[in-house]
Amino acid sequence: MANSIYGELEQLGKTGGAAQTPEEAILEYVKNPRPDSDYVVRFTCPEFTSLCPVTGQPDFAHLVLDYIPGETLVESKSLKLFFQSFRNHQAFHEDCTVGIGERLVKEMAPKWLRFAGYWYPRGGIPIDVFYQTGAAPEGVWVPEQAVPTYRGRG
Amino acid sequence: MANSIYGELEQLGKTGGAAQTPEEAILEYVKNPRPDSDYVVRFTCPEFTSLCPVTGQPDFAHLVLDYIPGETLVESKSLKLFFQSFRNHQAFHEDCTVGIGERLVKEMAPKWLRFAGYWYPRGGIPIDVFYQTGAAPEGVWVPEQAVPTYRGRG
Amino acid sequence: MANSIYGELEQLGKTGGAAQTPEEAILEYVKNPRPDSDYVVRFTCPEFTSLCPVTGQPDFAHLVLDYIPGETLVESKSLKLFFQSFRNHQAFHEDCTVGIGERLVKEMAPKWLRFAGYWYPRGGIPIDVFYQTGAAPEGVWVPEQAVPTYRGRG
Amino acid sequence: MANSIYGELEQLGKTGGAAQTPEEAILEYVKNPRPDSDYVVRFTCPEFTSLCPVTGQPDFAHLVLDYIPGETLVESKSLKLFFQSFRNHQAFHEDCTVGIGERLVKEMAPKWLRFAGYWYPRGGIPIDVFYQTGAAPEGVWVPEQAVPTYRGRG
Amino acid sequence: MANSIYGELEQLGKTGGAAQTPEEAILEYVKNPRPDSDYVVRFTCPEFTSLCPVTGQPDFAHLVLDYIPGETLVESKSLKLFFQSFRNHQAFHEDCTVGIGERLVKEMAPKWLRFAGYWYPRGGIPIDVFYQTGAAPEGVWVPEQAVPTYRGRG
Amino acid sequence: MANSIYGELEQLGKTGGAAQTPEEAILEYVKNPRPDSDYVVRFTCPEFTSLCPVTGQPDFAHLVLDYIPGETLVESKSLKLFFQSFRNHQAFHEDCTVGIGERLVKEMAPKWLRFAGYWYPRGGIPIDVFYQTGAAPEGVWVPEQAVPTYRGRG
Amino acid sequence: MANSIYGELEQLGKTGGAAQTPEEAILEYVKNPRPDSDYVVRFTCPEFTSLCPVTGQPDFAHLVLDYIPGETLVESKSLKLFFQSFRNHQAFHEDCTVGIGERLVKEMAPKWLRFAGYWYPRGGIPIDVFYQTGAAPEGVWVPEQAVPTYRGRG
Amino acid sequence: MANSIYGELEQLGKTGGAAQTPEEAILEYVKNPRPDSDYVVRFTCPEFTSLCPVTGQPDFAHLVLDYIPGETLVESKSLKLFFQSFRNHQAFHEDCTVGIGERLVKEMAPKWLRFAGYWYPRGGIPIDVFYQTGAAPEGVWVPEQAVPTYRGRG
Amino acid sequence: MANSIYGELEQLGKTGGAAQTPEEAILEYVKNPRPDSDYVVRFTCPEFTSLCPVTGQPDFAHLVLDYIPGETLVESKSLKLFFQSFRNHQAFHEDCTVGIGERLVKEMAPKWLRFAGYWYPRGGIPIDVFYQTGAAPEGVWVPEQAVPTYRGRG
Amino acid sequence: MANSIYGELEQLGKTGGAAQTPEEAILEYVKNPRPDSDYVVRFTCPEFTSLCPVTGQPDFAHLVLDYIPGETLVESKSLKLFFQSFRNHQAFHEDCTVGIGERLVKEMAPKWLRFAGYWYPRGGIPIDVFYQTGAAPEGVWVPEQAVPTYRGRG
Ligand SMILES: [Ca+2]
Ligand SMILES: [Ca+2]
Ligand SMILES: [Ca+2]
Ligand SMILES: [Ca+2]
Ligand SMILES: [Ca+2]
Ligand SMILES: [Ca+2]
Ligand SMILES: [Ca+2]
Ligand SMILES: [Ca+2]
Ligand SMILES: [Ca+2]
Ligand SMILES: [Ca+2]
Ligand SMILES: [Ca+2]
Ligand SMILES: [Ca+2]
Ligand SMILES: [Ca+2]
Ligand SMILES: [Ca+2]
Ligand SMILES: [Ca+2]
Ligand SMILES: [Ca+2]
Repeated sequence: MANSIYGELEQLGKTGGAAQTPEEAILEYVKNPRPDSDYVVRFTCPEFTSLCPVTGQPDFAHLVLDYIPGETLVESKSLKLFFQSFRNHQAFHEDCTVGIGERLVKEMAPKWLRFAGYWYPRGGIPIDVFYQTGAAPEGVWVPEQAVPTYRGRG
Repeated sequence: MANSIYGELEQLGKTGGAAQTPEEAILEYVKNPRPDSDYVVRFTCPEFTSLCPVTGQPDFAHLVLDYIPGETLVESKSLKLFFQSFRNHQAFHEDCTVGIGERLVKEMAPKWLRFAGYWYPRGGIPIDVFYQTGAAPEGVWVPEQAVPTYRGRG
Repeated sequence: MANSIYGELEQLGKTGGAAQTPEEAILEYVKNPRPDSDYVVRFTCPEFTSLCPVTGQPDFAHLVLDYIPGETLVESKSLKLFFQSFRNHQAFHEDCTVGIGERLVKEMAPKWLRFAGYWYPRGGIPIDVFYQTGAAPEGVWVPEQAVPTYRGRG
Repeated sequence: MANSIYGELEQLGKTGGAAQTPEEAILEYVKNPRPDSDYVVRFTCPEFTSLCPVTGQPDFAHLVLDYIPGETLVESKSLKLFFQSFRNHQAFHEDCTVGIGERLVKEMAPKWLRFAGYWYPRGGIPIDVFYQTGAAPEGVWVPEQAVPTYRGRG
Repeated sequence: MANSIYGELEQLGKTGGAAQTPEEAILEYVKNPRPDSDYVVRFTCPEFTSLCPVTGQPDFAHLVLDYIPGETLVESKSLKLFFQSFRNHQAFHEDCTVGIGERLVKEMAPKWLRFAGYWYPRGGIPIDVFYQTGAAPEGVWVPEQAVPTYRGRG
Repeated sequence: MANSIYGELEQLGKTGGAAQTPEEAILEYVKNPRPDSDYVVRFTCPEFTSLCPVTGQPDFAHLVLDYIPGETLVESKSLKLFFQSFRNHQAFHEDCTVGIGERLVKEMAPKWLRFAGYWYPRGGIPIDVFYQTGAAPEGVWVPEQAVPTYRGRG
Repeated sequence: MANSIYGELEQLGKTGGAAQTPEEAILEYVKNPRPDSDYVVRFTCPEFTSLCPVTGQPDFAHLVLDYIPGETLVESKSLKLFFQSFRNHQAFHEDCTVGIGERLVKEMAPKWLRFAGYWYPRGGIPIDVFYQTGAAPEGVWVPEQAVPTYRGRG
Repeated sequence: MANSIYGELEQLGKTGGAAQTPEEAILEYVKNPRPDSDYVVRFTCPEFTSLCPVTGQPDFAHLVLDYIPGETLVESKSLKLFFQSFRNHQAFHEDCTVGIGERLVKEMAPKWLRFAGYWYPRGGIPIDVFYQTGAAPEGVWVPEQAVPTYRGRG
Repeated sequence: MANSIYGELEQLGKTGGAAQTPEEAILEYVKNPRPDSDYVVRFTCPEFTSLCPVTGQPDFAHLVLDYIPGETLVESKSLKLFFQSFRNHQAFHEDCTVGIGERLVKEMAPKWLRFAGYWYPRGGIPIDVFYQTGAAPEGVWVPEQAVPTYRGRG
Repeated sequence: MANSIYGELEQLGKTGGAAQTPEEAILEYVKNPRPDSDYVVRFTCPEFTSLCPVTGQPDFAHLVLDYIPGETLVESKSLKLFFQSFRNHQAFHEDCTVGIGERLVKEMAPKWLRFAGYWYPRGGIPIDVFYQTGAAPEGVWVPEQAVPTYRGRG
């Protein structure tokens, strides 16, 4: 299996930290090593935090990304650093979640993409946001994310 | 991301409480910040209470709202206060649940909406009510709510 | 919301008990308060018992009813008393479950109905019975009942 | 292993049903086949029903019995028929649960006994009753029953 | 079993609602029908709501009561109405939970009592309060309440 | 409900044991008591054992059968005895599971049938086998079996 | 680590099957490789079957063994074959479970032993049997087996 | 119940954000409203983040605090802001967790305190840290925190 | 059932270990014993490990294979040895998972195949990869794999 | 908090891989940063593999370590590399698990240590091994590891 598709990367195996803002964060891509098949890649990130634009207080979310690669894969360390770059970013939940999805679509040019943010409750009521680029292509397998709905207590 | 869409709000960041009745409660809306995508927003409210029209005794429910925004998002604090306005309201379970759904549809003009009430048991038998405006639009992702069916004991 | 639809009921708020047989039990109906929407009502009854026609010994089941109201709703207390009227009734599992579903369909004239009995094991093997009147109408939301399949031990 | 300890039984392998009342029900006993060891026997009965003394309506419970045999074991079919004999019996939850425990103690003369009733909710609030004859003897292993506490909805 | 211990009750089987304040609410007691045994009675109430003293907004809690009766049992309907009387009461979580426990102790004179409030999150952080009158008496069985610790999302 | 459909049975209520081989086992059928409805019957058997054809060692499986009756129902005791007849039978997992399904189809002539074997792991890797006669008929409700996928440890 | 303690074994790595009866089954032992520490070994066997002495029908159980080795360990393949030797053995649940425990104690001479059988339900009521040789020695860690109590349906 | 104990607080109901460092963060205290009882207060914070001292990358933890108040309660909003002040703080897991516990002990002077950090995995291996001031006082009830041990996948 | 289809196998019942590389590993096939039915075979392997191509450190995955046999079945021991042959193989997650799927397709010529790898987290973010050969054929039953999405802590 | 305690480490932040054998693996230690408190550190490692001494085939385990530090903490990366060094090591389950515990005790000189291996099943029966150095010191909090007991299927 071709190791060389990772040869140009700037961040993998380096010790640099995350960018200070999402705008500065650079997602890196590698060549799809299995271009003859349509398959789904899922990344699960339970360690996401940003700031509330109204109060400046921290928000937290559990994120799940599903996509069908086109010509490239997103490199996982650069994805992690991209998510970390929201640490001091102010964002509304709906806008932030869909915005991440839209940016990934624009940069990655995947065949299909689904992205969800499962936000922690504020005022006793959590928000979940579910975005995708449209119906999944025929014949590709996309399991449910099955992150539990918020339960409260008891 | 545009903070300004929240600039006209009356309730966000204010200390006023809930209206005394659902009729008096005012849902506020902000401009959909991502109008180019169809996505689903889910609010989960496990803290709902109203009164039984027959006995006057309190009823409780766990509510879940899913919708695809049209031109506006419902602002989450006003939604919370709207739910709180049922505290002294007398309502049958089926009527109350569908009625909330219908009002949200009328006011929000969402592209699609789903609303469920999972009521606590009375007489050993709980009622769940599942309402939606019709089939979800093609290509939009709507995960199951997956609130557990009532189990009894054992 | 119209309280008056409950005005004619004989059993709600009364202290009379269940009928002695299913044949004698009377299901009561009220006007559908939200006739402009198609929605699903779910009743979950984990407290059902009847008698085995062969041995006379008690059987137990966990029942779940889903339906889309037509012109009427079934009143929940009369439904509870109807279920209780099977206490001294002898019934095979398949026949009993489908028979309840068929009777509800005949009396209620719902737009659609689904009814399941999850029976306790006999001879180490439980029976579940799943009945519905046909495919659910387009555009109506019917979540899975998701009652766990029998597991045995371990 | 001695089959003969079962030779005197009246109910095992017979087709007779349950007695009509707990008072008429006869618990049968067999000789403890392992009298040199102190061990715990657990019976779990999720199929128990009696009647409410105030309303006459059915009550349901999930029962768990733990005991350390003395000279005898309770025969399991007679125990099942004993539990079935409550079907038309009127009983308050606390009284009924402790009463069953006390009767089993009196008749069985076990070295130790624990008995719990996990009743289905009435008025939205279930009652659990936990009875035992005292601290378990030193050196005997008594796992927790771990029946889930009532959860409500959500 | 003695039905007569319930003969003096004012609220059981009556249609009166809850008192307007906890101070006005009257807990009723019946004679312990099994005074020769020490046993535990557990009531689980997932339907509790009060008001925040600072903001006036609703708070919710899941309550669990365990006690060993002395000469009396608390009657379950009067307990339900007592819990309902907090609906318009302003209370801090720690104070409210322990206060309910202390009042029950004072009025019931139980041999032992344990009371917990599992409050819904505020500011993303829920409070649980665990009160008991001291170590449980030797030889009495008190299973864990095992209400799940708050989990957040993911 | 017609008890008479059970009148011809040889095994129900008799004390005979299982046949020595699947070939000798006789499945008995009764008339479908609800021929006007299409419904699903599920039998769950967590107590199945056969022998490995290579090593002769015992194998175990958890079986679940779903079918839509045609003119007959399979009688549950004869089904139990049929499953027990594999106790000394040597069978590969795939062949055995599909073979049971095929035999039931041939004998029962159901409108549709689904049969699964969830085998215990050998070599650290369990096999599950999922058989059905084709797509379920339109309008019939077939819930997922939802037996958990093997998990290993941790 | 000394492989040689396994050198004398007759069954490990051989292809012989289980003995035909428990009496003929031979448990093999190896030298405790860590005699300076007191530790617990747990074997979990969800694949156990024997025969009912009354009806001759199969019984099933989930077994868990915990012990603190003395001078020897029980070799796991011989333990598996010992459990398999009950396949055609007739046994009452209480007697069988405690009998296995007592035999293991007699042969292994462990410092301490705990053995449980979690039997599948008969007549709707399963039996669990919990045996141990006495209190675990001070300072040794014995986690709960935490096999779920039988739940029934729903 | 005395509202006045909250009268002196600087942060409750104010809009100021978290301090920039733990050193600057000020925990506020109110008078224990129930000084005659020993009870436990639990705060669960699943939204904690700090920085790794070696790599500067974000760490995340789920925190649970249990304590028995002495003369004061910690005010919950100031506790939340204290936890938020670690957002840009560099901390090793063991040191950070125990350090928070020690500071709370020093400032609050509780009768007893327990504090745990359940950190997200690094290198595939998560660290949990469990600190308490000693054995809980006799007669006080301290339920297990029961946060699940890390599971990995499958 | 035909034992002879296993007669030509080289690895089943032999003591040889796994090949040193996936390239050297030989998957063996047997004739489909039920060629008249389309059914699904699932293998679950929670014991998979390979090496990271960048760091050389071990990676772990939970694998699940579903396929509809054509003329052959894959023999389970050879499949186990094939999975073991990755022990010293360096592989990126996406490439490795899809590559295994593609090889199985090429060699087995199944009617349909689905293969998933659920990898353990690296950098706090696990990758799942979902591959299939296209939509499952009409009328074949393919249950969800339902391996839980990664949860993190809390 | 003192970063300097990590200054002497050879492996943290370096790219060297695991040693080839446990004997060669070097565990590194840092000064206990909180020597005035007795607390428990838990490491959970679900990614452990070694080789069977009889067959040479891979074994897998889920490991959990709990200890109370004395003068030092074990550095987590060196612990990870130590666990990885068993990859080509042949080990019996009981011996390997207790041996790791004994080595950690000898090298770390903790105040107390507990170590468990939860091994994947072989022959359908998994082995768990539970080791500790004796009773935990008074006043230190050691939550249960609560790794689920093996369940089999169903
Ligand atoms: Ca799906
Ligand atoms: Ca709840
Ligand atoms: Ca779906
Ligand atoms: Ca139940
Ligand atoms: Ca569905
Ligand atoms: Ca099982
Ligand atoms: Ca215990
Ligand atoms: Ca909140
Ligand atoms: Ca306990
Ligand atoms: Ca979480
Ligand atoms: Ca695992
Ligand atoms: Ca049974
Ligand atoms: Ca314990
Ligand atoms: Ca405890
Ligand atoms: Ca990691
Ligand atoms: Ca499906």
